[in-house]
Amino acid sequence: MPNPLHAELAQLLGDRFTTSDYERQQHGQDESSLPPMLPDAVCFPLTTEEVAAIVKLCTQHQTPVIPFGAGSSLEGHVFAPHGGISVDLSRMDKILRVSADDLDCTVQAGVTRQQLDQSLRQQGMFFPVDPGADATLGGMASTRASGTTAVRYGTMADNVLTLTVVLPNGDIIQTGSRARKSSAGYDLTHLFIGSEGTLGIITELTIKLQGIPEAISAAIVGFDALDTAVKAVTEIRQAGIPVARVELLDDIAIKAINQFSNLALAEQPTLFFEFHGSKATVQEYAEMAGEITHAWGGSDFQWAVDIGERNALWKARHNAYFACLAYRPGSRSLTTDVCVPISQLAECIIKTKEDIDQSGLTAPIVGHVGDGNFHLLLLVDPHKPEDFAQAEQLNERLVKRALAMGGTITGEHGVGMGKMKFMQAQHGAGTLAVMHAIKQAIDPQNLMNPGKMLPTLE
Amino acid sequence: MPNPLHAELAQLLGDRFTTSDYERQQHGQDESSLPPMLPDAVCFPLTTEEVAAIVKLCTQHQTPVIPFGAGSSLEGHVFAPHGGISVDLSRMDKILRVSADDLDCTVQAGVTRQQLDQSLRQQGMFFPVDPGADATLGGMASTRASGTTAVRYGTMADNVLTLTVVLPNGDIIQTGSRARKSSAGYDLTHLFIGSEGTLGIITELTIKLQGIPEAISAAIVGFDALDTAVKAVTEIRQAGIPVARVELLDDIAIKAINQFSNLALAEQPTLFFEFHGSKATVQEYAEMAGEITHAWGGSDFQWAVDIGERNALWKARHNAYFACLAYRPGSRSLTTDVCVPISQLAECIIKTKEDIDQSGLTAPIVGHVGDGNFHLLLLVDPHKPEDFAQAEQLNERLVKRALAMGGTITGEHGVGMGKMKFMQAQHGAGTLAVMHAIKQAIDPQNLMNPGKMLPTLE
Repeated sequence: MPNPLHAELAQLLGDRFTTSDYERQQHGQDESSLPPMLPDAVCFPLTTEEVAAIVKLCTQHQTPVIPFGAGSSLEGHVFAPHGGISVDLSRMDKILRVSADDLDCTVQAGVTRQQLDQSLRQQGMFFPVDPGADATLGGMASTRASGTTAVRYGTMADNVLTLTVVLPNGDIIQTGSRARKSSAGYDLTHLFIGSEGTLGIITELTIKLQGIPEAISAAIVGFDALDTAVKAVTEIRQAGIPVARVELLDDIAIKAINQFSNLALAEQPTLFFEFHGSKATVQEYAEMAGEITHAWGGSDFQWAVDIGERNALWKARHNAYFACLAYRPGSRSLTTDVCVPISQLAECIIKTKEDIDQSGLTAPIVGHVGDGNFHLLLLVDPHKPEDFAQAEQLNERLVKRALAMGGTITGEHGVGMGKMKFMQAQHGAGTLAVMHAIKQAIDPQNLMNPGKMLPTLE
Repeated sequence: MPNPLHAELAQLLGDRFTTSDYERQQHGQDESSLPPMLPDAVCFPLTTEEVAAIVKLCTQHQTPVIPFGAGSSLEGHVFAPHGGISVDLSRMDKILRVSADDLDCTVQAGVTRQQLDQSLRQQGMFFPVDPGADATLGGMASTRASGTTAVRYGTMADNVLTLTVVLPNGDIIQTGSRARKSSAGYDLTHLFIGSEGTLGIITELTIKLQGIPEAISAAIVGFDALDTAVKAVTEIRQAGIPVARVELLDDIAIKAINQFSNLALAEQPTLFFEFHGSKATVQEYAEMAGEITHAWGGSDFQWAVDIGERNALWKARHNAYFACLAYRPGSRSLTTDVCVPISQLAECIIKTKEDIDQSGLTAPIVGHVGDGNFHLLLLVDPHKPEDFAQAEQLNERLVKRALAMGGTITGEHGVGMGKMKFMQAQHGAGTLAVMHAIKQAIDPQNLMNPGKMLPTLE
């Protein structure tokens, strides 16, 4: 029996609507180790108006709507636990407007980070949020993503001016304006950032840009121990030195990227730094940072000043996720994502490293340590349920530790399906009740990405 | 007949509950030119739990609750158009925790900007949001305030980590955590920032601090014309020079502060700059800025390097509001607050200046021009309704101009009662409907600061 919603969507979109097994499979999985859950069909809209039409039809047929960007999420955000329609925004990939005068631009939600970067760099600008993956800007906003440069430039929460959003009722709204600041009512821009498609679909973003700094330099520093590396970063942050990036990789992560990216870095806990500014300021910042790392027993800075070296280094860092997977062939990663106040970071990492050692799991550590955020890649054999159970147990201990330290269960990956079970411990019943009230107010039929983010109230 | 709610509040709070005419008068007015509207009574709680008890009683008696901080708002935020209870948080003035390691602190909502500043400076830190007025931190969060330093450090939206909020049902919630970033669910911190007491009462704030920079220097530059001053700022922003403050005062504002603060500044459009950083970077930034202002015909920088001179200069700038009122004795100010993309700022100011000249009103211009935000102080004689009408007309033209330029009706003062009539033009019906849905979900009886921010749906 033909599905009437499918028939209407096919009429609307032609061959940009599909129920093929291949596309359903592609849209029911992400980069996580969670088992896939397929949507019933996939749409590829080209405009905000088409998204609105799709959402209206789905609402009429009380069918779930799951937005999809690049599928690079790590917590099952794009899964379809209740079936429904995956709305793939990747063909909405137009850069609609760039203003060098205002240092802002407007893009469709399917524009990817690298696509935008290539276009902007030719014009002397860049968009500073860099989660590593070549995610879509819409997906990055939906998960409140950040990454290596948040320590200097902030997260998606800090770099979006206004969003175009399709609401569950099919209305198309603007959440804000192009003004750099505004006190005109509830902050809907920040409400939709990080809402993971549960309140509507982001179709366009107006974002803040940066001019490419006069000087950029990168350096790496090795340490004998993990805790001294972290303590050096803590002191650098406390001293207010405006590092543009400061990433920690432990000895196992370095081994993995050496193998994957054919590098020969010393296999020890290592900090990757980048400094942005004028030539004089970059030199000054680097000297200040170098003095602190040296005092904590760090090696001399190994510099990567020219763009080729620098790109090789950061490409290796960005590929750390895949390098770590390749380090234990055939494995999947359960990736943790806590973020704690920086004064607690060294203790949090050290205790976690002890947990890893006791577990017998292989789990490289990579971290945006300037923010207090780090990841374990708990490498598990997909055929061994006991691996998963052990990794899950370790993650739970880590999450509880972070919460006890005043931190968060997820610094940048989002909640999706994987972290729902920790939301009550994070927020408490009263705060969760407010989130539920907002969800109910905006999506009363619970059709927008259902089964994600908000746990059922107890 | 005794009011039963008043009796219960008196029992709860003793002499920290009052219906005295004096206190009702004090709590039914602000710094705006709007006519006062008095609450029925005033409470002075000392703790979050007392605020929760007050709110619960008011909810039981279906009585409006109006939070009150320092009364320095400019749009009637603290007025009681439907009567009710003013909850004055000024006695909740404890700094609860300061962490130099994490550069954050937790304060009660009644702590004022200057009180916090005095405490922090002794510890080598400062809180960067500076609206000029000695507002409470709770009030600053409620209106999403900013001020002279937003160009470098952002607004309240950028500098709060988490809030303690009393909800309309009396629940006490935390909106976030002390982590520097988080992707754990809806961003309630940003939702409550700028919500003007319409969703609950902020009772505690955890905020980000900054280390006092090694070097600070301030300078003023005069220009022959307003537009060249603005164009110089635009170019400085576009060049990415990280000025800590850049304020514009027109010739009339300079005359007013010369008289009020006994200064002898050249009476012409003038930029006030401040630079923060290391000695070397401050010098570098200042030289870069100086080259640009010079190219636009600005005078040489007049430096105020030592702390006494610098404080005198900024005190004069902060007192500009009162200086302008004193410039036309007996007047009140209708203060405008648009913010536009910086590429539009020069045109917006020039056209507005033409409007002022045609109107015959006295209206000094002061502006946080680095953000695209500026204020007219439309000085009106409180006994002349025709003055008000003319000022209101000019403000409406300005608001429409800003919206046409992609800007906002209020950069930092908030909506209150004064700007409600522009909310539909700012946001459109769909966006306003979302705001109403949120309000209805969290405050279904419409008891939290009713008659503010959200216009009745048409």
